[in-house]
Amino acid sequence: MQKASLKFISKTLGISVATVSKALNDYPDVSKKTRDLVCNLAKELNYKPNSFAVNLRTKESKTIGLIIPVIVHYFFSNVIEGILKEAENEGYLVIILQSNDSYELEKKQINLLISHGVDGILISLANETANYDHLNAVLAQDKTLVMFDKIAKIVKCSKIIIDDRNAAYKATQHLIDSGCKRIAHFRGALLPQNSIDRFLGYKKALLDNNIPYDASLVYICECEDKSFEEGQKNAKQLLKDHDDVDGIFINTDLIAIGAINEFRKQGVRIPEDISIVGFSNWFMSSVTSPSLTTINQPGFEMGQKTFHQFHAEIKAIKDKNPIPPRTITLETDLVKRESTKSF
Amino acid sequence: MQKASLKFISKTLGISVATVSKALNDYPDVSKKTRDLVCNLAKELNYKPNSFAVNLRTKESKTIGLIIPVIVHYFFSNVIEGILKEAENEGYLVIILQSNDSYELEKKQINLLISHGVDGILISLANETANYDHLNAVLAQDKTLVMFDKIAKIVKCSKIIIDDRNAAYKATQHLIDSGCKRIAHFRGALLPQNSIDRFLGYKKALLDNNIPYDASLVYICECEDKSFEEGQKNAKQLLKDHDDVDGIFINTDLIAIGAINEFRKQGVRIPEDISIVGFSNWFMSSVTSPSLTTINQPGFEMGQKTFHQFHAEIKAIKDKNPIPPRTITLETDLVKRESTKSF
Repeated sequence: MQKASLKFISKTLGISVATVSKALNDYPDVSKKTRDLVCNLAKELNYKPNSFAVNLRTKESKTIGLIIPVIVHYFFSNVIEGILKEAENEGYLVIILQSNDSYELEKKQINLLISHGVDGILISLANETANYDHLNAVLAQDKTLVMFDKIAKIVKCSKIIIDDRNAAYKATQHLIDSGCKRIAHFRGALLPQNSIDRFLGYKKALLDNNIPYDASLVYICECEDKSFEEGQKNAKQLLKDHDDVDGIFINTDLIAIGAINEFRKQGVRIPEDISIVGFSNWFMSSVTSPSLTTINQPGFEMGQKTFHQFHAEIKAIKDKNPIPPRTITLETDLVKRESTKSF
Repeated sequence: MQKASLKFISKTLGISVATVSKALNDYPDVSKKTRDLVCNLAKELNYKPNSFAVNLRTKESKTIGLIIPVIVHYFFSNVIEGILKEAENEGYLVIILQSNDSYELEKKQINLLISHGVDGILISLANETANYDHLNAVLAQDKTLVMFDKIAKIVKCSKIIIDDRNAAYKATQHLIDSGCKRIAHFRGALLPQNSIDRFLGYKKALLDNNIPYDASLVYICECEDKSFEEGQKNAKQLLKDHDDVDGIFINTDLIAIGAINEFRKQGVRIPEDISIVGFSNWFMSSVTSPSLTTINQPGFEMGQKTFHQFHAEIKAIKDKNPIPPRTITLETDLVKRESTKSF
C-alpha cells in the first residue's frame, strides 16, 4: 500500500507540499476548493500527520505530565480518572509517573517530563520532598505547574486542595460528640502539608473542647504503601501503651482498616470500646465490617479541577494575558458509619 | 536569565549549530575536544534538548500508549504500576488512556496515540470491543502492539494473559471439594475472552465431577464500574430463583463482595449456607468479613511482562531482526480464606 504522506498528496494533486500542509492545518490563505481537495484525499488515504512536525509549528505538545506518589491507591486513582476525563475532552494526552514518595525520583521525573516537551506538569508531592528547587525550575522555564493534594505552600503555582485542618477538626469533633474522652491520632508522615494539617485540626478540636493534648497519643505512619500494616502495628502498640483510649482519628482509611483488623483480632469492640474515624472515604471503607466512619475526600473532582486550572492557565498564556496562581479548596464531608457510636 | 539553546551555545563557542547538535548527540565525526567543550557548557547552562528535535533524528518518541478499561480498579492499577516501573527503567514515558469499556472511545484513543507518534501501544480491550480493525491498523503501521488481560485471540500480536479457564476450573473444583453440590456462576460481560474462559472453566469443572450444567444458575454482570451493585443485584435475584444453591464462583472480587454484602443483609451465612470464590485477589478481599477465597491474578507481574515484551519487540525491530508475536501465560493460585469451608 502507498504510504500516505504530504509529498504523495502534493504529487497526486499537483500542488506544493507547503500548500497541502497549510490546507490540512486550516490556514486562511488556502482556497476552500483546495482545502476540500486535500482533506478528502487525505481522508481517503487514511493520512496521519506526523505529530513531531505539528509540534514544531505549534510549539505545543498537547501532552501534560502527571506525577503521583502511588498508583495502587483508591484516592489517587480517582484523581487520575478525573484528570484523564477532562484532558481527553480538551485533546490533551497525559503521561503518568509514580514517584513512590521518593524525592530523588520525583526530581528525575520532572526533568524527564520537561526535556520531553510537555506543556505542563500536574503533581502531588512525594512524602520525602522538602526541597522545592525542581518545582521552581519548572516555573522558571515558563511551564505551567499545578499541585494537588500534597502541596508545598511556598511554591508559587496553583494548588487544588481540601481544607485538611478543618476536615480533621470535624472528624475529631464527631468523636467528642459521640462521647469519646481520650482520643488518639494516627498521623501521616512528618513532611507532607496535609498530614501536618490533619494533625493540627485534631489538636485544635481537642483544645476547643477543653481536652488536654497528649503527645503520647499521637502515632506516626510513615510509609504510604505499607498503610495497612502500619495501622496494625500502631493499634498493637497503642493497646500496650494506653488502656484508656476510647477514640482514634486516623490519617487515612487504609491505616484505619489495618487498625480495625488488629483490634478485632485482640477482641477490642468497635465502636463500643474504641471508636474510629478514618480519612478519604475509600470504597472498601463502606464494605468492611464494621464499616468505617470517615471524611469524604473528592478525588475525581480534585482531578477535574486540577486539569481545569492547568487548562485555564495555558489558555491565558496563549492569549498573552497570564493569570496569577490560585488555590482552590474543595468541600469535604463526614460520612457516618458503624465505626463510631450514633448519638 | 539567558535561555540555553543550541544557537546560544553555538554563538558562545563560535562553532556551527550543527556541530553543537552533533556533539550533544555523540556523533563520531566531532572531536573529543569539541564534544567536551559543548557538553560542559550545556551542563553549565542547564541546557535541555528540545525533544521534538531529538525525535526527528531518532524517529523514536520513547513514549508508549497504554489503554485500559478502568483506572479505579485494584487489578488494573497494579498492572499500570508494573508497566510504569519497567518503562521508567528503560527510559520510556507512558501515556495512559481510559477506554471506559467503550469500543468507540478505544478506537479514537488508538488513533490519537498513533498520530501522536508513540512507539507502541499496550492495551487491555474494552468489554464492548468485538471488531478489531483499529488494532490491525496499528500493526499495519509497523507499530508494536501488546495486549494483556482482555485480549482478542485473532489479532496477531503478543499477549500477556493468565489461563483463565484453568483458574476458573480450580476455583470451581475448590467449591466441589469443600462439599458444594449446586454451584452458580456470576459471569462477566459476554464479549471479553477472559469472562468467556472463566465461564468455560466453571462448566468443565462441573462436568468433570458429574454435576449437570444448569444455565439458569449463570448470572451476567455486564458493567465493570458497577461491579459491586451487580453483585448485590444478582445475589438478590439468585435467592428469589433458587433456594438450593450452596456455592457460587464469581467472575471478579468486587462482584463477590457486593454479593456477600447482600447475602449478609438477608441473613444468609457464608460459608455455612453459601460458599463463595471470587477472582483477582483485590486487596480488600483480605480485609472484608468474611474474607474472600479467590484466585490470585498477578497484576504487577502482568504489567512488567507486558512492557518487557514490548521492549523486546522494539529492540528486535531496531536490530532489523523482528521476532514473531508470542503469548505468555502467567501462573495463578487459589487463595483460601473464610468465604469457603475448610476441608
